[in-house]
Amino acid sequence: MDNLIDGKAVAAQTRDTVAKAVAALPITPTLAVVLVGDDPASQVYVRNKIKFTEETGMRSLEHRLPATATQEEVVAIVRALNADAEVDGILVQLPLPDHLDSNAVIAEIDPSKDVDGLTEVSAGRLVLGQPGLRPCTPTGSVILAKAALGDLTSKHCVVLGRSILVGKPAALMFLEQNCTVTIAHSRTENLPVVCRSADILVAAVGRPKMVKSEWVKAGACVIDIGINRVPSVKRPGQFRLVGDVDYRKARSVAGAITPVPGGVGPMTIACLLRNTVLAACDRREIDRPEILKI
Amino acid sequence: MDNLIDGKAVAAQTRDTVAKAVAALPITPTLAVVLVGDDPASQVYVRNKIKFTEETGMRSLEHRLPATATQEEVVAIVRALNADAEVDGILVQLPLPDHLDSNAVIAEIDPSKDVDGLTEVSAGRLVLGQPGLRPCTPTGSVILAKAALGDLTSKHCVVLGRSILVGKPAALMFLEQNCTVTIAHSRTENLPVVCRSADILVAAVGRPKMVKSEWVKAGACVIDIGINRVPSVKRPGQFRLVGDVDYRKARSVAGAITPVPGGVGPMTIACLLRNTVLAACDRREIDRPEILKI
Repeated sequence: MDNLIDGKAVAAQTRDTVAKAVAALPITPTLAVVLVGDDPASQVYVRNKIKFTEETGMRSLEHRLPATATQEEVVAIVRALNADAEVDGILVQLPLPDHLDSNAVIAEIDPSKDVDGLTEVSAGRLVLGQPGLRPCTPTGSVILAKAALGDLTSKHCVVLGRSILVGKPAALMFLEQNCTVTIAHSRTENLPVVCRSADILVAAVGRPKMVKSEWVKAGACVIDIGINRVPSVKRPGQFRLVGDVDYRKARSVAGAITPVPGGVGPMTIACLLRNTVLAACDRREIDRPEILKI
Repeated sequence: MDNLIDGKAVAAQTRDTVAKAVAALPITPTLAVVLVGDDPASQVYVRNKIKFTEETGMRSLEHRLPATATQEEVVAIVRALNADAEVDGILVQLPLPDHLDSNAVIAEIDPSKDVDGLTEVSAGRLVLGQPGLRPCTPTGSVILAKAALGDLTSKHCVVLGRSILVGKPAALMFLEQNCTVTIAHSRTENLPVVCRSADILVAAVGRPKMVKSEWVKAGACVIDIGINRVPSVKRPGQFRLVGDVDYRKARSVAGAITPVPGGVGPMTIACLLRNTVLAACDRREIDRPEILKI
């Protein structure tokens, strides 16, 4: 049954497209990554981000600070990167150590360099339908749905979850694609029925296997944004990643479905690279490359 | 049949509540209104805004510029009001004369004084669920729905229309009230069926009487945001105001319904006054008055 949406393959295509767009630019976009502390997962993420930035022909800058860094020190770095005309994108790797105020750090990022799409201004531009930098995971979700379905106009998209980082921006981005959009959440009545009305079901609740196969309309496209660590049964003491959807059973009902891992996850970095190109173009008053249009 | 939601009465209550909140504050909030040109409708609006500002115990400042004012002159006024520590709210009366760039003027308004809720930052705060100044018409719509229904948790709200000024912010505000929210629009399939699934139907399309009584579920709450000028049949050459809903027929189906005029319209100024108090409190680090909570 070939209804799997291969996030790794689509992410590789997206990176190829980014590389083509970069090669055609008169400048080299630059992404600056700020990493505070030595969380092992964050180290891996940052390493991958730098690797892919360079593989797509862009310049990468890395700023590392010790876990003991003060709020002032982190903010000072962000401000210096804001002021640096060569820097097109600023990524502060989250989570920051507990003693730091992440929101206050993010608020310092110049919205024109906000490649994670986390600032108030970026969120506002999304609502207002203005050009801006959209958050990466929702963007990746839209690209995967389009890879499976093509044009999304008039599809009924149900977004399950209303988080500020994923659910709400995803709803607004599927609306930009001319979907009819329903936002469902923990206070929604008859959740299975609501989900079953979806042509595109986007799960973003962070609860392992919450979405059952009975919640999926036959032939629907299922985008599983959840990445949940659960104890491995086979290997005690270890963990494995599962999505918000009961993938194995839902796959027999869905018309198309993303796995976890290997679905939305790989798209996030690809969309970060895409945002870096868009930021570079907007800042330097170059037209956004047509091939990067969603 | 007593299913009319009396916007005039609820607006008067809201203004009373604002006046009580103002009387309890250690300061007097100040609203500055900027009016460019001499559009007769704008003159009436501004006069009413000033009247109600003063009636609720607040201070009102008025800045008038001729229709020939330049972009630089309008921006200079906004900047001066931003810099004036006594000014809590800045309202630029729209529409501006055609030769002026409204978006560029709005972008100049300090978000902490953006009592119309029109800036990118205000829109972003709405998405991000942060305290901020919400646009007035969507706020008024929520207050009217609560006046009819009480707690809105778990109600299915269908917002018809996805404009940046009304539809999208209304959807996000009903979501804040724990509604399940569907955003429907011109590309939605089976629009009558989608509308008929609503416990709360919010019409914001700007098309006279587009929503028929068959689109309304028996007992549903209908909030009609549309204000359309149509030629009067009885008085040739004159106009009358009608909503987006075929009010006369829908009233026999709905559990509660707002008329046009006299529904959402009067709420807009009341919510502007409410925002002025909230802006004054936030700027001066005073807790927002509990009685102004929605």
